[in-house]
Amino acid sequence: MRRVITLTTDFGLDDGYVGTMKGVILGINPEAVLVDLCHNVAPQDVNEAAFVLATSRRYFPAEAIHLVVVDPGVGSKRRAIVVESSAGVFVGPDNGVLTWAAGDRLYRRVTETSAHPGLRARNIANPSYWLPHVSRTFHGRDIFAPVAAHLSNGVAPAELGEIVDQITWLRVPVPEVLGPDKLVAHVIHVDRFGNLITDLSEEDVRHLGGDLYLEIKRHRITGLSEYYGAREGLVALVGSAGFVEIAVHGGSAAQFLRVRRGESVVVRARRSDSG
Amino acid sequence: MRRVITLTTDFGLDDGYVGTMKGVILGINPEAVLVDLCHNVAPQDVNEAAFVLATSRRYFPAEAIHLVVVDPGVGSKRRAIVVESSAGVFVGPDNGVLTWAAGDRLYRRVTETSAHPGLRARNIANPSYWLPHVSRTFHGRDIFAPVAAHLSNGVAPAELGEIVDQITWLRVPVPEVLGPDKLVAHVIHVDRFGNLITDLSEEDVRHLGGDLYLEIKRHRITGLSEYYGAREGLVALVGSAGFVEIAVHGGSAAQFLRVRRGESVVVRARRSDSG
Amino acid sequence: MRRVITLTTDFGLDDGYVGTMKGVILGINPEAVLVDLCHNVAPQDVNEAAFVLATSRRYFPAEAIHLVVVDPGVGSKRRAIVVESSAGVFVGPDNGVLTWAAGDRLYRRVTETSAHPGLRARNIANPSYWLPHVSRTFHGRDIFAPVAAHLSNGVAPAELGEIVDQITWLRVPVPEVLGPDKLVAHVIHVDRFGNLITDLSEEDVRHLGGDLYLEIKRHRITGLSEYYGAREGLVALVGSAGFVEIAVHGGSAAQFLRVRRGESVVVRARRSDSG
Repeated sequence: MRRVITLTTDFGLDDGYVGTMKGVILGINPEAVLVDLCHNVAPQDVNEAAFVLATSRRYFPAEAIHLVVVDPGVGSKRRAIVVESSAGVFVGPDNGVLTWAAGDRLYRRVTETSAHPGLRARNIANPSYWLPHVSRTFHGRDIFAPVAAHLSNGVAPAELGEIVDQITWLRVPVPEVLGPDKLVAHVIHVDRFGNLITDLSEEDVRHLGGDLYLEIKRHRITGLSEYYGAREGLVALVGSAGFVEIAVHGGSAAQFLRVRRGESVVVRARRSDSG
Repeated sequence: MRRVITLTTDFGLDDGYVGTMKGVILGINPEAVLVDLCHNVAPQDVNEAAFVLATSRRYFPAEAIHLVVVDPGVGSKRRAIVVESSAGVFVGPDNGVLTWAAGDRLYRRVTETSAHPGLRARNIANPSYWLPHVSRTFHGRDIFAPVAAHLSNGVAPAELGEIVDQITWLRVPVPEVLGPDKLVAHVIHVDRFGNLITDLSEEDVRHLGGDLYLEIKRHRITGLSEYYGAREGLVALVGSAGFVEIAVHGGSAAQFLRVRRGESVVVRARRSDSG
Repeated sequence: MRRVITLTTDFGLDDGYVGTMKGVILGINPEAVLVDLCHNVAPQDVNEAAFVLATSRRYFPAEAIHLVVVDPGVGSKRRAIVVESSAGVFVGPDNGVLTWAAGDRLYRRVTETSAHPGLRARNIANPSYWLPHVSRTFHGRDIFAPVAAHLSNGVAPAELGEIVDQITWLRVPVPEVLGPDKLVAHVIHVDRFGNLITDLSEEDVRHLGGDLYLEIKRHRITGLSEYYGAREGLVALVGSAGFVEIAVHGGSAAQFLRVRRGESVVVRARRSDSG
């Protein structure tokens, strides 16, 4: 059965781990269409994987299955889960990595399964859909890949295990509100170009209104630009994921500012009526 | 409709950008066959992307669609184009990145569209074939990927936009001629093995005739070898793309000579009749 | 014809080499299903490629074709071969890189073709199945890729060339036996997480019996754990490939111990009856 399965892992590209998972999937569903989302997630960095998946998944067909193996707790008692929601079907460990993507809105600020009406999580418990021999260190190969493959073949999620009421939700990064016109936002992702993606959303920008002033590491940026090359030096704009990002055209803002994920960005709004 | 789409970008493999583009394509044409050419093009390095595409495309089926997103001008007024030629169909920004590959000969030394009889370029202007919402920073996802997908579904290029007479051509690197027996060639690509690929073509070598002497960073190489392991130390040979490359068997010429792209190579020919 | 072809090379992901091979394959068999095993094998590191393939291949469908291009001898007189065995069909240079995977047991400790009853090797000699023009430096593109593609189309291996009696076998890494209760094992692979995979197999562990003590770079590890997070600091466990590996939960054992491939690990067993 022709169906897209995306793969997101922290396995890197120097070993055979990702290819092995694909072999397992194609052995079960030879017509699966495999798409790599990212395998260079920093080892065990659940936040980074959650970000990549949450910002990519809505560009996939609704029937796609999203497989994530960033799994510091492999072999321990952490659960393996399948999550179904209006956003798609998600397979991975119950450590929060699926929750930003599976929520009915990106970065929805609630953390209980029950608050997401369309969302249903199941414990992966039925070994009939796993490889016959399960190792203690590579559940991506032995459990998650075969489960995703069986789902892509049309196996009903209910076959895999019972519904669970509580799953682990990853804390959603949001700007700190310091006043009606002042927020502290945070760098939540640094991309390949050195662009600094913050948790200040397009919606936050609309809500603030007026002209924005951003301050990061003693550098001040006035106003949002339309595109990277709109001016020399530091520029801030609403990026492709719907969040404000800070960039240097033709260079790396991360290098220029020596900034990593987590850095604070002070955001001030001056409304035209208050000037 | 089963059809190959190749992807060449400077997006790297640390983010979800490439996977997102694939999601968009598979949403429009679920049977597209996606092949990564290279995503580790140095950020905004139009020359490197042009080289990778030009040396790879002729090994693909003629009906393949080649999608390139190395796009420093994204969001500005630079055009998005589709180029059709006997070499295939190419989709990307109008910054020259497509021109080496689309030309009817590799590195053809003319730079006007009209001089390539089989070549036709069109402005990508019809938003019916884009995503409904177009960001200012990620046209790869919002314009180029959907356009390539629609083309792979059989949409006629004429649907996408008007023919344009002038497009941006990238300067073709060619050796400087200093005399009948003397050229200055240039390193135009350094590959993973540290091999230095120059702009001295097989044809240039035939034209020079006689025995070749290459000089790079005060090292002299006498004659062309048949394969990498033909001798110890530095070796020069006609590489797989039809250009002379300088290599060290079992090592890296780039590291050994501390050379980057752009370095000069003095080439002398001594003809047997002149000795 | 729908059939999996895996690709393992040392070409890296910075050039168009891998994509070019895929173009060649899809030109011959448009329905081939291409799976990357690993392209970041260290340049010309035949052992690393052999390890990746040997530990991955059994997770692929039996009819898969495994293409390996780690080929320091390209262009010289080294043979190109196809190996058929119960483990699958393998295509690559005759430098040993295929032998760990093609053997009927992982790391089987014999080195003659005749000792592997089901294994048959053939010289790739029939140019009808190559590209028309064969370069001296890129047999991956000109010979190996088209041969794998034709095999995936159902061409019989016998069409490709004669059976050869002797091929090059790669020395299998095995622990040195120093006594009934003492071995010296070796690190044979360092993975992305910095886990140190040794040549001490699950079978060796069973054979030793009793409680194990491992010593590496003056650090002592007592007993095997069940999973990475089972204790703080250094941990040893049977990894997913069936070999003992040394890890640091949430960190890199390779960095912590400053260890590379080849490092020795002293293994002692104390049997309960001898205490």
